[in-house]
Amino acid sequence: MMIASTANRRVKEVAALTKKARYRNEEGVFVVEGPRMFSEIPKDRLVHVYATEMFLRENEALGLTDGGGILDTVSEEVLRAMSDTQTPQGVLAVVKQSRHTLAELLDGPKPALLLFLETVQDPGNLGTILRAGEGAGVTGVVTDGHTVDPYSPKVVRSTMGSVFRVPFCRTDDFAAALADARKGGIRLVAAHLRGSVEYDTQDYTGPVGFLIGNEAAGLSAEAAEAADVRIRIPMLGRVESLNAAVAASVLMYEAARQRRRAAVR
Amino acid sequence: MMIASTANRRVKEVAALTKKARYRNEEGVFVVEGPRMFSEIPKDRLVHVYATEMFLRENEALGLTDGGGILDTVSEEVLRAMSDTQTPQGVLAVVKQSRHTLAELLDGPKPALLLFLETVQDPGNLGTILRAGEGAGVTGVVTDGHTVDPYSPKVVRSTMGSVFRVPFCRTDDFAAALADARKGGIRLVAAHLRGSVEYDTQDYTGPVGFLIGNEAAGLSAEAAEAADVRIRIPMLGRVESLNAAVAASVLMYEAARQRRRAAVR
Repeated sequence: MMIASTANRRVKEVAALTKKARYRNEEGVFVVEGPRMFSEIPKDRLVHVYATEMFLRENEALGLTDGGGILDTVSEEVLRAMSDTQTPQGVLAVVKQSRHTLAELLDGPKPALLLFLETVQDPGNLGTILRAGEGAGVTGVVTDGHTVDPYSPKVVRSTMGSVFRVPFCRTDDFAAALADARKGGIRLVAAHLRGSVEYDTQDYTGPVGFLIGNEAAGLSAEAAEAADVRIRIPMLGRVESLNAAVAASVLMYEAARQRRRAAVR
Repeated sequence: MMIASTANRRVKEVAALTKKARYRNEEGVFVVEGPRMFSEIPKDRLVHVYATEMFLRENEALGLTDGGGILDTVSEEVLRAMSDTQTPQGVLAVVKQSRHTLAELLDGPKPALLLFLETVQDPGNLGTILRAGEGAGVTGVVTDGHTVDPYSPKVVRSTMGSVFRVPFCRTDDFAAALADARKGGIRLVAAHLRGSVEYDTQDYTGPVGFLIGNEAAGLSAEAAEAADVRIRIPMLGRVESLNAAVAASVLMYEAARQRRRAAVR
């Protein structure tokens, strides 16, 4: 089918999925834009594809057809109305969310390497954390209710595909999630500006969960106190804090480094 | 003096400094916005301050007066016309650039910990690299002619003040800069997706320079070949590359970790 009018009901639905976290979560889907991210979508999670005629002509190799009833052709104008960007690149897909529970994350690959994110609000930071997390071998990411929605378009874009592969769950009771993780044998390590020990003095080869706080305020006192240890990343010069994605990456890659070394021994 | 019209010559000059790298570099100054960054400006580099009456009332403690002839009061509208942001926060300053030569960077604190950035184009990435670099103890940053201007407003903001403290220089002949650094005893280490060794197998306690490439294309073949060693940061999952700021931070903090350990021995 060809959709040519921005007044079409489907166009408005996709635009709402792009803009509203609540609507995305009610529907259990999210929006993926552009050919680069389109190529990363797991086939079994693809719900619907909207593409321009030009995109379909130039990407015949993808074999996209209307056979399964999941493909609509749209005009550039319609695509722009659905999209989060001013220059959508010919294709946009509606994709099933992947939902996990904390219990599932705790039951994942061993030894666990978890991230607990408290009120991380910058979409670029969250996306970068998911991307670096996959690279470092993170087995799951837990976010509190104030962290930006991992399925928001800006986060999805900056994950470069990791959003499809890193298991994550969102909780409105962060304290309970931390308590459950500890009960499950995870050593909780809080990144803290006044941490009592340097981050690289600790052993991360066992099951571990790093707690990372808000970009401006850091971790809440409650979350910091719930951890087994509060570590600091040493900072020279007059730097007061590191970017949240940098701090998370330094910690995750230190864990990855120790685990590679332990495997070699 | 009170400037109330956006047609004022000075307003147009500051707006041009905000927008145009070439004009900034001709004048040898740049623009710093908002109270957070204002408080980080070294006093001897302050050229001119533009502030709203409300900002001056609410920040009497700063002791800003028109005594030295470097303070003008402006309306909110005028400040917005000068600014890079839609909501400037009451104060904007014109500040002297700090210019260094590669020779000065090579002659800095020992052992050198340098960064060579080739065509890093995202302002947030460059700002984050300068901030993490100061924290990790980087002694200097060299950028090629295609890297975003470190004095562009978005970079300045995301450095959180490190732009005033990390020495950097820009070169139009990146290959010559790499050759000069090698001649100066710096071991050049290129971050490369097909690097032959893992990054944490190398010793960074001596004079070292990390080469970081463009966000999408990585390092040019020429730059990669100019290095003494091409290292890779191991990536699990299906991650094809790391964000440039994450990669730079992981490397700089590995160097910092090794240097702390060596100092303890």
